[in-house]
Amino acid sequence: MGGRLLISPKRGTQGLKLQRLEPGRRKVRSDQVAVEEPLEIRIEYHESGSWKTRSVSVTMRTPGSDFELAAGFLFTENILGSRNQVREISYCQGEGLQEYNVLSVRLREEVTFDPGLLTRNFYMSSSCGVCGKASIEAVEVRGCQPLPAGSFQLAAPVLSGLPDLLLAGQAGFQRTGGLHAAGVFDAAGEPESIREDVGRHNAVDKVIGTGFLNGDLPWHERALVVSGRTSFEIIQKAVAAGIPLVVAVGAPSSLAVDLARRFNMTLVGFARPGGFNLYSGEERILDWEAPSL
Amino acid sequence: MGGRLLISPKRGTQGLKLQRLEPGRRKVRSDQVAVEEPLEIRIEYHESGSWKTRSVSVTMRTPGSDFELAAGFLFTENILGSRNQVREISYCQGEGLQEYNVLSVRLREEVTFDPGLLTRNFYMSSSCGVCGKASIEAVEVRGCQPLPAGSFQLAAPVLSGLPDLLLAGQAGFQRTGGLHAAGVFDAAGEPESIREDVGRHNAVDKVIGTGFLNGDLPWHERALVVSGRTSFEIIQKAVAAGIPLVVAVGAPSSLAVDLARRFNMTLVGFARPGGFNLYSGEERILDWEAPSL
Repeated sequence: MGGRLLISPKRGTQGLKLQRLEPGRRKVRSDQVAVEEPLEIRIEYHESGSWKTRSVSVTMRTPGSDFELAAGFLFTENILGSRNQVREISYCQGEGLQEYNVLSVRLREEVTFDPGLLTRNFYMSSSCGVCGKASIEAVEVRGCQPLPAGSFQLAAPVLSGLPDLLLAGQAGFQRTGGLHAAGVFDAAGEPESIREDVGRHNAVDKVIGTGFLNGDLPWHERALVVSGRTSFEIIQKAVAAGIPLVVAVGAPSSLAVDLARRFNMTLVGFARPGGFNLYSGEERILDWEAPSL
Repeated sequence: MGGRLLISPKRGTQGLKLQRLEPGRRKVRSDQVAVEEPLEIRIEYHESGSWKTRSVSVTMRTPGSDFELAAGFLFTENILGSRNQVREISYCQGEGLQEYNVLSVRLREEVTFDPGLLTRNFYMSSSCGVCGKASIEAVEVRGCQPLPAGSFQLAAPVLSGLPDLLLAGQAGFQRTGGLHAAGVFDAAGEPESIREDVGRHNAVDKVIGTGFLNGDLPWHERALVVSGRTSFEIIQKAVAAGIPLVVAVGAPSSLAVDLARRFNMTLVGFARPGGFNLYSGEERILDWEAPSL
């Protein structure tokens, strides 16, 4: 096993040559595309006096923030509960070239890990799903609590500017046009963490992973902003992280709206400087007329 | 088990009430969102004199074209090879209300099915992935052949109009703004099949499933058009269906480009009426100057 690396040595974008075709011309151009590579996540745990390794998942992701991706994924999948359970996260050294595509989350020796949990989690999050209602119940079974009514509110002028702030933080998208982003912002619209990935869910896991590794969760006073659409799974991850407000540039699915309403979350879609759609949790939004906080 | 149903009785969109906020006003509005619900796919197979059932996957999908989704998924995952192996596809009748969220693909009695294949496929398509190269090799291991050079060509003026033709076929997107689409077109730009889904991969599986169930595969003389970005998995599915040309409205990932080049596929991105990017397989594109076929 290699040493601990805080940042993936790989770049999230890659140069290539392509042909650009327009009426009357065809020419060679250099451009950048988003890198997509598999990441295998393993857990190392102590059992009956020895260390064991278990492969948990393989996801196609954009290199960068891999440790946060792993932490966020394991947390939102209910496999990890607190950063105190983690002793170290490191890339595994393979037999040949170090590809930085396999990483290991080593648990503290005293932490008990039940590999059967993986199967049960998979079962709960997927094959339970005879109907949408069953899927939502699975989230409750996993121990997620409705979000607190609390004091967190966001002013509409701030909210409607968040997608542009997210875009401004997306270095990779501006080079490639091919990366999703997720970001966490406070009530003043200040970004706390912005991450990119070819996969929408991975971008959310990376952001939540920063909160997990910093010990900042639950994020009851933060808004999650996503560059795309909202699905059941995105909302499920936000619920797990305790985030009461989700703002999307795109549309929600029916199940995203159902889950947000069930868990007392504020869900916004089609957010633009000129306005937005509010699907649930209106009490957390102060509209343009109200005095700004 | 219920009887055979050709079309899902559910709708792909659903009405709801929301609040629309703009500077100076907040009002209630009725709108439509894309439906997202889980679909469980089961295989029924004959072994040692009795019928057995095995759950293969659960995916979050937009109801509609469920049989095509199941067929396309099982084909592109290399679990099914030909429609002759399938005796019937039907919704399973649950104990309570028929939710049309579980379906069964019943194989012919003489077809041997190895449940171990599911594990091996999963292993090959995912945990092999120590690097991008290994992922690409997994596609080759699954028996996919490089696409034939053949005679299929598309004229640039036809190609650049395909995204608008796809959009014109997207009834659900126009109502919700929240559905991906995939379509298969011939060299004249005539649509053969257009399908929508909240999931990009599902939309592609539904389209390929129509070809599978009609006995039309491989689609060596067709172009696949997708509303979003292209990833490793989208290209992998197109390779499995023998489609030599993929046109995307969005950007490709690095691995999508690598896989297309390796399998001799023509890959187009950022397709618009005014032009497009060509990443591989230039010999299949006739540009604006050339005489139209």
